[in-house]
Amino acid sequence: MGLFTRDIKTMNDLFVHQLQDIYYAEKELVEALSEMAGKANDPQLKNGFLKHLDETKVHVQRLEEVFHMHGAQVKAIDCPAIDGIIKEADEIAGDVADKAVLDAALIAAGQAAEHYEIARYGSLVAWANQLGRSDCASILQKTLDEEKAADKKLTELAESKVNLRAAS
Amino acid sequence: MGLFTRDIKTMNDLFVHQLQDIYYAEKELVEALSEMAGKANDPQLKNGFLKHLDETKVHVQRLEEVFHMHGAQVKAIDCPAIDGIIKEADEIAGDVADKAVLDAALIAAGQAAEHYEIARYGSLVAWANQLGRSDCASILQKTLDEEKAADKKLTELAESKVNLRAAS
Repeated sequence: MGLFTRDIKTMNDLFVHQLQDIYYAEKELVEALSEMAGKANDPQLKNGFLKHLDETKVHVQRLEEVFHMHGAQVKAIDCPAIDGIIKEADEIAGDVADKAVLDAALIAAGQAAEHYEIARYGSLVAWANQLGRSDCASILQKTLDEEKAADKKLTELAESKVNLRAAS
Repeated sequence: MGLFTRDIKTMNDLFVHQLQDIYYAEKELVEALSEMAGKANDPQLKNGFLKHLDETKVHVQRLEEVFHMHGAQVKAIDCPAIDGIIKEADEIAGDVADKAVLDAALIAAGQAAEHYEIARYGSLVAWANQLGRSDCASILQKTLDEEKAADKKLTELAESKVNLRAAS
């Protein structure tokens, strides 16, 4: 991203800019999810992170597909938001002494990342449709649905087991 | 937050830590929403940001109430996630040349902040209930509901008007 370059002049520029932002975020999350899976103690949580890691690799490929379909350069730009979310996840994981409490903290960190993506893909789907690119919108919608499902699974795991253990 | 001090030993420590994180975030958002309202061009969007600014000031007070109820010190700790989200909002606003496109970008930025809060308050409500603090949970739930409503209103405004103008 240029710093105050005023180089976003159209809705299409904004759409491509946001694609580049989430492309960076997804690639960073591939690494972060791998680390979170490594730190998780509950086997179901560990598997959940690993499964979502596989989905995230597909999300990266889907974004590349959308870049190509839209005739835009495949490019990642810095995304301070996801950097901050991941930094916060690393810091809290380093600060938790108890294994069960760490699992609860990891779930919350994962959900912060999911919600960032839900917000971004929600905008991208709406903008793609507005630009007449329902083909791009339907690909982005698939990822949006998977992010929402991942968030829901983390909530279920927290409420059915992880929070209970952490509080005991 | 201590850097890898391992000072979070219990679910209660995690709950208080997260309260301190969102307390910082809400206070930063008071300032950020004021700036976003100043930049918005559509009167309905400007009013929406100003209305949510008022709600955000109440969210700060509610957090102070929860700190007191729970016998914890009212304290804010650095929250790199909201810093990143706000930094990204500032950068994109500075990069957009067209007024209608700027409004679309501001909505997306606002929704990124809303979703961060939805994730954090979701965890806080669950943890408060797990800790037997349904009194704190019900206060936090009120804010969670308002964050979700604010997000929904931004979606409606984007889809009914702002995106249409931005793409024209």
